[in-house]
Amino acid sequence: MPGHHSRSIATVCLSGELTDKLEAAANIGFDGVEIFENDLLTFNGSPADVRRMAADLGLAITIFQPFRDFEAMPEPQRRRNLDRAERKFDVMQALGTDLVLVCSNVQEACIGDPARAAADLRDMAERAAQRGLRVGYEALAWGRHTRRWREAWDIVQRADHPALGLIVDSFHTLALKDDPSGLAELPGERIFFVQLADAPLYDMDVLQWSRHYRNFPGQGQLPVTGFLRAVLASGYSGPLSLEIFNDEFRAAPVRQTARDGLRSLILAEAGAAAPSAPGTVPATPLPPVPRLSGIEFLEFAVNEAAGRQLGDFLGGLGFQLAGRHRSKAVELYRQGQVNLVLNSEPDSAAASHFEMHGPSVCAMGLAVDDAAAAARRAEALLCASWNEKRGVSERLLPALRAPNGALVLLVENQPGRPTLWDDDFHLLPAAPPAGPPLLGIDHVTQALAPGQMDGFVLFYRGVFGLEPEPQLDLPDPQGLVHSRAMVNAGGTVRLPLNTSEARETATGRFISAAAGAGVHHIAFLVEDAAASAAALAGSGAPLLPIPGNYYDDLSARFALEDAELEALRRLNLLYDQDAEGGSFRHAYTTSFANRFFFEVVQRRGGYRQFGANNAAVRMAAQARFEAGRRG
Amino acid sequence: MPGHHSRSIATVCLSGELTDKLEAAANIGFDGVEIFENDLLTFNGSPADVRRMAADLGLAITIFQPFRDFEAMPEPQRRRNLDRAERKFDVMQALGTDLVLVCSNVQEACIGDPARAAADLRDMAERAAQRGLRVGYEALAWGRHTRRWREAWDIVQRADHPALGLIVDSFHTLALKDDPSGLAELPGERIFFVQLADAPLYDMDVLQWSRHYRNFPGQGQLPVTGFLRAVLASGYSGPLSLEIFNDEFRAAPVRQTARDGLRSLILAEAGAAAPSAPGTVPATPLPPVPRLSGIEFLEFAVNEAAGRQLGDFLGGLGFQLAGRHRSKAVELYRQGQVNLVLNSEPDSAAASHFEMHGPSVCAMGLAVDDAAAAARRAEALLCASWNEKRGVSERLLPALRAPNGALVLLVENQPGRPTLWDDDFHLLPAAPPAGPPLLGIDHVTQALAPGQMDGFVLFYRGVFGLEPEPQLDLPDPQGLVHSRAMVNAGGTVRLPLNTSEARETATGRFISAAAGAGVHHIAFLVEDAAASAAALAGSGAPLLPIPGNYYDDLSARFALEDAELEALRRLNLLYDQDAEGGSFRHAYTTSFANRFFFEVVQRRGGYRQFGANNAAVRMAAQARFEAGRRG
Repeated sequence: MPGHHSRSIATVCLSGELTDKLEAAANIGFDGVEIFENDLLTFNGSPADVRRMAADLGLAITIFQPFRDFEAMPEPQRRRNLDRAERKFDVMQALGTDLVLVCSNVQEACIGDPARAAADLRDMAERAAQRGLRVGYEALAWGRHTRRWREAWDIVQRADHPALGLIVDSFHTLALKDDPSGLAELPGERIFFVQLADAPLYDMDVLQWSRHYRNFPGQGQLPVTGFLRAVLASGYSGPLSLEIFNDEFRAAPVRQTARDGLRSLILAEAGAAAPSAPGTVPATPLPPVPRLSGIEFLEFAVNEAAGRQLGDFLGGLGFQLAGRHRSKAVELYRQGQVNLVLNSEPDSAAASHFEMHGPSVCAMGLAVDDAAAAARRAEALLCASWNEKRGVSERLLPALRAPNGALVLLVENQPGRPTLWDDDFHLLPAAPPAGPPLLGIDHVTQALAPGQMDGFVLFYRGVFGLEPEPQLDLPDPQGLVHSRAMVNAGGTVRLPLNTSEARETATGRFISAAAGAGVHHIAFLVEDAAASAAALAGSGAPLLPIPGNYYDDLSARFALEDAELEALRRLNLLYDQDAEGGSFRHAYTTSFANRFFFEVVQRRGGYRQFGANNAAVRMAAQARFEAGRRG
Repeated sequence: MPGHHSRSIATVCLSGELTDKLEAAANIGFDGVEIFENDLLTFNGSPADVRRMAADLGLAITIFQPFRDFEAMPEPQRRRNLDRAERKFDVMQALGTDLVLVCSNVQEACIGDPARAAADLRDMAERAAQRGLRVGYEALAWGRHTRRWREAWDIVQRADHPALGLIVDSFHTLALKDDPSGLAELPGERIFFVQLADAPLYDMDVLQWSRHYRNFPGQGQLPVTGFLRAVLASGYSGPLSLEIFNDEFRAAPVRQTARDGLRSLILAEAGAAAPSAPGTVPATPLPPVPRLSGIEFLEFAVNEAAGRQLGDFLGGLGFQLAGRHRSKAVELYRQGQVNLVLNSEPDSAAASHFEMHGPSVCAMGLAVDDAAAAARRAEALLCASWNEKRGVSERLLPALRAPNGALVLLVENQPGRPTLWDDDFHLLPAAPPAGPPLLGIDHVTQALAPGQMDGFVLFYRGVFGLEPEPQLDLPDPQGLVHSRAMVNAGGTVRLPLNTSEARETATGRFISAAAGAGVHHIAFLVEDAAASAAALAGSGAPLLPIPGNYYDDLSARFALEDAELEALRRLNLLYDQDAEGGSFRHAYTTSFANRFFFEVVQRRGGYRQFGANNAAVRMAAQARFEAGRRG
């Protein structure tokens, strides 16, 4: 017996033809698939062909679905529906699956009598049983008379046929804010199938919500873990299956979606198992979420020329060349607590990254408590690992690939032991600091192509325990940018994720220029933003100019001293305040080569946000500056 | 006094920087703009600069907006809000506008007492009056205490100050299904400003609906005309202003949006004026919607080689060369009642079209009752007209450009007079027909790039009186295709519009291949689809193969005779039925050069749809066929 439930995915979650879907599900490691009928109808091969294909791939066909609008119809539809069922039983037998999903009837003609529904389902189950098949009944959240799992369960109990059982779906239950806890009391063997789906919390028609906005468990905001815990407490031992209708998934690369799906199932099962059985070994032995103490470094892929230009740019921000790698064409730049690495080593991961994306961040080093355990967790969650060749005495950094292929390196610093920099670099004597020191990397913002947000949220949430903050819509002059910050519990790692369907927004332009997702913006934490901005301005650093109207409005919105307002205006500093009185001062540089840019930020009084209120002004200024630079 | 109200648009409707927005609004012919504050804050110039810029462009600044969360706050916010108002009055005076929009307070702290709200607004109005300014109060549909226009009007009446008036917005009123008819009873001079917006009918949170999905009047489904009629009946004589928050508009080319906006205002005003004053001349003398009797022809842009290939392809579908243009390299192909024109004339509109888009439909000829009047209507609705050079004795066809630049030619056929074809072509003797004759062009489907749907809906609705049918989501293997048919009252012209954010769907692939919007698919009406499909198959025409599973499912869904089912299967015919018993039989060709394709359709029993239930099967078959052809 495996240590986990059989893992299944509905073909409707995946893009492409049925062949593509089955291959992707099998390759990533699913045990089975739900055959969504539409994928069979559009397929140019018989159900027997599908059976063979699945068998060759080692995939079970866990269910055939959906069978709609069956129960409690008046005659003659009642009889016709039974005939229709027989035709679908033929298909199931050819497919080699014994279970069909009957979802609750949505027809206006459907009779609101549970006894009638039970009688019809009993008839269907009896016919199914004669062929060795089974029927599962599921409450659709928008069913005509049956909407909640208890109503469906009541009908299943009334029908009282061994070939009829209950099917539950986390979306249908949780979308109605229905309480799943009672599922724990059901006899587990009467639950024939369990479907899992999450969704962002939208206040909209539940059918539209379900058809277009579902996503994988952990990508949304529904309490799927509690639902699953209740289901598992019933003793249910069948497959856990993903059923997601999502416009973006329909268009996304099929392997990417399959991997995200399996990652999500592993996390969901581990999450549901963990606290339910204290003292016992969880079903999936997933190493714990690492404790992150910060972003140890960022590494830029450059060539020799771009490296010189970027080094000069960083010099203008007060960075100094602090070391050279012992064996590679890699330089360390430092300002205060911030380490930036410029990698121009030929024939390396960085070199391939440069070739594909131009000058760009190719790796992020995260400081973790236990690098080996973090790497094992990432591996268990299907992250590709990566090993770069290195010199004999150099440190081995476990590394994994983020969804965009960029590397995340796991750095474990132990008190009293040499650091990564001591081990791997010839460090240069530190010169006196140019300007107030940077206290660390406050946040790193990545630009994602449309359709990548859910995958990145799941990656950072699952592998590193970052939690998503609410999504914000930021108005760029050329369209909206959607932004969602992933932040760990201690606030030591903050990674905003930005995406935009509009191609000419700051985010859209970055995606075009960089040929894909990547780091768009790096914010440094400082003690005093005014002092830092003044030092930057004094050394001729390229600060982004902010228009005067912004400051006139600030003075209307906030009770700022005249002197402070004047300083903000003079230094091109932006200002924000939260409801609790925390405040935020920040200034931006113009971009390096119309690519990424930098920010200095000062947080006071527990301000935890990112100055989103100022994003419109910043993005308009960037667009203006870049247009001026081009023209 | 002009024959219409002053026409205004809020800068938030338009993409780009404030400069771009003002220029676009002025160039298309708006009289004024609402300055949306965010557009001022992000602008790198003073309010006085904006005033000069608007004056130079001949634009009035009709209002400054929004001023949020003002009324009925406890101290100290109350006092701060009055200070904030004074700062914004400064801005208004520098801008040179006398009116500010105060939208109802959404803060939790806001006191639910109309008398308090009235007292605060009176204070504000008194301060405004001292500077010669005015304040308009508007109920937001999601305001804390004031949501409906009557509640706002009650507060304005209580405040009783000449510098305080009511502002109404069609979206806020109609989104709550509030009745606008009482607006007619208000004293018109107490309404200070009128904003117009439409929206598709979505059942979702009204704030999200408003922020992301508004569109121009006539693009959505709200009864904006009735709202406007009530407002105008009050005697309101101020500007009519568009205020649209729409994610697609934010990213669309600014001139396109400005033109759509003005077109929509002209139509809205004409619509509101028309029936209210029978016997009088409407404010905007807009020629009536033309009566369309059908699609007279489609014209393909080709070069010599593509023309030969397409001619051969059409020959396979039973078309015959029926004539040659008297003066140009233009050929007429005919089958039954369908005319297809192949234009390879160098140095023509078709030649430019071919150069940009490859072989494609460059013009559609619509048969109208009065071509001159239709052309005048189109011109009044801001359509660019087009005149191709022509031979001396040839017919002058009024032509206008669709939003994608394709030509729509207006053909007026009069009984007993020579036709276009007689006038302009050397007609060849008709050969005996190859196969059952085509009865006409049933529908023409266009593929639109994302963001173009609203503009096309307004164009066909406004210029030709076609009405949009509900939007459908069609599942292509690589993503959803959204489809909406525009149909005239008589059903003689049917133009489905398809769009897809996903680039690898059938629609997405067409947009890439054809470099923009265009005709993707042409359906011919036939008497008997089986006879036509059999004739096509017999002559070796390239019919799209349909998988067997589709027919197995048909037999489960519909009570079809075995013989009919066998015929459908053998002939690759698809079948659909509507709720009233109407039926639809249709078959597709494979595509010409992976571009456009053809369909034969048979309608029975009043079936009015387009077989959307079969779209998934058709699109999967097309993707499979094209992949096979490529690989």
